[in-house]
Amino acid sequence: MKIIMNRDRLIESVQHVMKAISQKTTIPILTGIKIEATETQVKLTGSDSDITIEAVIPKEEEGIILIDEIVPGSIVLHAKYFPEIIRKLPNEMVEIESDDKLQLSIRSGHAEFHLNGQDAEEYPHLPLLQSDSSFSLPNDLLKNMIRQTVFAVSTSETRPILTGVNIKVEDDHLHFIATDSHRLAARKIPLEVDQANLSFSQVVIPGKSLNELNKILEDTDEKIEIQVGENQIAFQAEHLYFVTRLLEGKYPETSRLIPDQSKTIIHADTKTLLQSVDRASLLARESQNNVVRLETKGNEVVEITSNSPEIGKVEEEITIKGMEGEDLKISFSSKYMIDALKIMESDQVKIEFTGAMRPFIIKPVDNDQILQLILPVRTY
Amino acid sequence: MKIIMNRDRLIESVQHVMKAISQKTTIPILTGIKIEATETQVKLTGSDSDITIEAVIPKEEEGIILIDEIVPGSIVLHAKYFPEIIRKLPNEMVEIESDDKLQLSIRSGHAEFHLNGQDAEEYPHLPLLQSDSSFSLPNDLLKNMIRQTVFAVSTSETRPILTGVNIKVEDDHLHFIATDSHRLAARKIPLEVDQANLSFSQVVIPGKSLNELNKILEDTDEKIEIQVGENQIAFQAEHLYFVTRLLEGKYPETSRLIPDQSKTIIHADTKTLLQSVDRASLLARESQNNVVRLETKGNEVVEITSNSPEIGKVEEEITIKGMEGEDLKISFSSKYMIDALKIMESDQVKIEFTGAMRPFIIKPVDNDQILQLILPVRTY
Repeated sequence: MKIIMNRDRLIESVQHVMKAISQKTTIPILTGIKIEATETQVKLTGSDSDITIEAVIPKEEEGIILIDEIVPGSIVLHAKYFPEIIRKLPNEMVEIESDDKLQLSIRSGHAEFHLNGQDAEEYPHLPLLQSDSSFSLPNDLLKNMIRQTVFAVSTSETRPILTGVNIKVEDDHLHFIATDSHRLAARKIPLEVDQANLSFSQVVIPGKSLNELNKILEDTDEKIEIQVGENQIAFQAEHLYFVTRLLEGKYPETSRLIPDQSKTIIHADTKTLLQSVDRASLLARESQNNVVRLETKGNEVVEITSNSPEIGKVEEEITIKGMEGEDLKISFSSKYMIDALKIMESDQVKIEFTGAMRPFIIKPVDNDQILQLILPVRTY
Repeated sequence: MKIIMNRDRLIESVQHVMKAISQKTTIPILTGIKIEATETQVKLTGSDSDITIEAVIPKEEEGIILIDEIVPGSIVLHAKYFPEIIRKLPNEMVEIESDDKLQLSIRSGHAEFHLNGQDAEEYPHLPLLQSDSSFSLPNDLLKNMIRQTVFAVSTSETRPILTGVNIKVEDDHLHFIATDSHRLAARKIPLEVDQANLSFSQVVIPGKSLNELNKILEDTDEKIEIQVGENQIAFQAEHLYFVTRLLEGKYPETSRLIPDQSKTIIHADTKTLLQSVDRASLLARESQNNVVRLETKGNEVVEITSNSPEIGKVEEEITIKGMEGEDLKISFSSKYMIDALKIMESDQVKIEFTGAMRPFIIKPVDNDQILQLILPVRTY
């Protein structure tokens, strides 16, 4: 194998596949990056057996030559040294060459590295994804849907299924739902016509996989194709292929958690409320387990307070846009509220309460695609 | 006590004094910030009993009103919450008020914090520095002298005196010297006339103190006054006072370590050599304890190599500006070489060797104020 190519593009692709590589894997060869060169492209692969990422560098892209020379071949290199070596090379071109003894040479300017490689034949064969069910989404919309839900997955392995985000097709909508049983984050989008006959009904993707995917997806409106298989789901962008295992088990039915009526409705400025809860949380972190209190004070004012006997207390009255229904005193986790308000995509939010001991929901005032639900904390 | 003042200036001063505060102190009140208001200024104090930092905010500075209102008084506040509270306040003005029960109120916009304070009378009295010996240096020069030496202090407590930087007056020069006994960093500047009759000959300042001082000094040519006492040294800038204890004991005589003749002299481009050693170090980190090798190859080329049997090897020939004397093969810590080359302040360096087993010296070609000495590693 021999490749002479642009260094910066190689760095970018290496960074992408590195997201899948863990030094803790039980399969030693998976601590490496697989490099495969064919006549027309170089493909890099990284995997921790749960997530696999492939990055492809074509010989030429939009009239720009990315690879000057390719002699086909393949090798696996230890991922611990390769990325930093490439990044610190002196020239903008790099030459990578392997011999039949699995010795790899990397040359750039006057610098020459010789690394011990491993046989690419020993790299596990990734199961091919069998799927008739595929649809596509713009990158930036997919990133938003991940961002608006994934923070609410459970971090505890007590109920492993809750460590994933539930993706389902229902009522002509695509839904992303995550809950750790103390709060729930949901985002939906209407399905376009050509997606309406999707043959999958629901899957659960590990939260960790979605976090890694979110990191490598660019924030553009280019479309990414999503293929849903039995045990795996794949995301195919132009030069990037991301596949992850799905979580096994049945995701709980969450729709019955969401109250369909309310006793108190508050309309508030998102940023004002967010900053006020953030300030109140400063004193609530340790002794109070992040709990802050909200109390309505007539139609246009709510008071946000927190009290930590040893440290002190904080109180702030904020002017709201309006209120309907009963007066209310309620306590909740400031962290959950901050997480929810941060992803609202709207200057104004509507909060619907059904009493101090019942879950409440937070939505943007101007759309119903985003819904956040928080269970209050009993303090009275 | 009551203060109504500019929030941004308060944040800056709080950040400065925080550098001295440790949550690990054995004197509980030192986990707090002391606030003292007089008719004309507010003074903040932070201390871990080794380092004490005072920041002063005058009522008015260069015609700009910084403090709208002062009622004199003093209090000590827990430093864990105060900085973040101030930073997250909604308005650009903040009102701080304490009552006779040591309750402190912080108000800004509609936000109001109530914190439990402590009696300022219980805060330790800092020993007043008695000193007839003082001199001044521009901030940026002092910062450079710290930066060029402090990295070489010992991190081991085996010989505590080596954890400090030795500051001494000798031969009409002010010297900063640090060594961990494997390498030595020295910087000197000629003393100006009015400093020539300084009554101190030498002190040793803890490396940690100089690192903290370096962080809070601005990179300007304003002068800072340095007062040298028996057990302490103080640095007085316009609104900042930094005092640290000195290390006790006798600093070793280092001048005899520095060879006064050489067998091989290399002139090289600083950046080229630095980057080459940095690349070679990539493979030397773990198995080779950071050791890289330098070998002269005639008058204009040196080869930098490193070899890690399990991982691979790297070799690079770099063109140098010139060489005098014998050919040489020598091994040394890449980390020490990188540290030394980074602070050279010159595009070209001169390296003077006295054989493969003797310490060598690195200097800028164009001045003798900076000297770095490295002990080689025996590998042959």
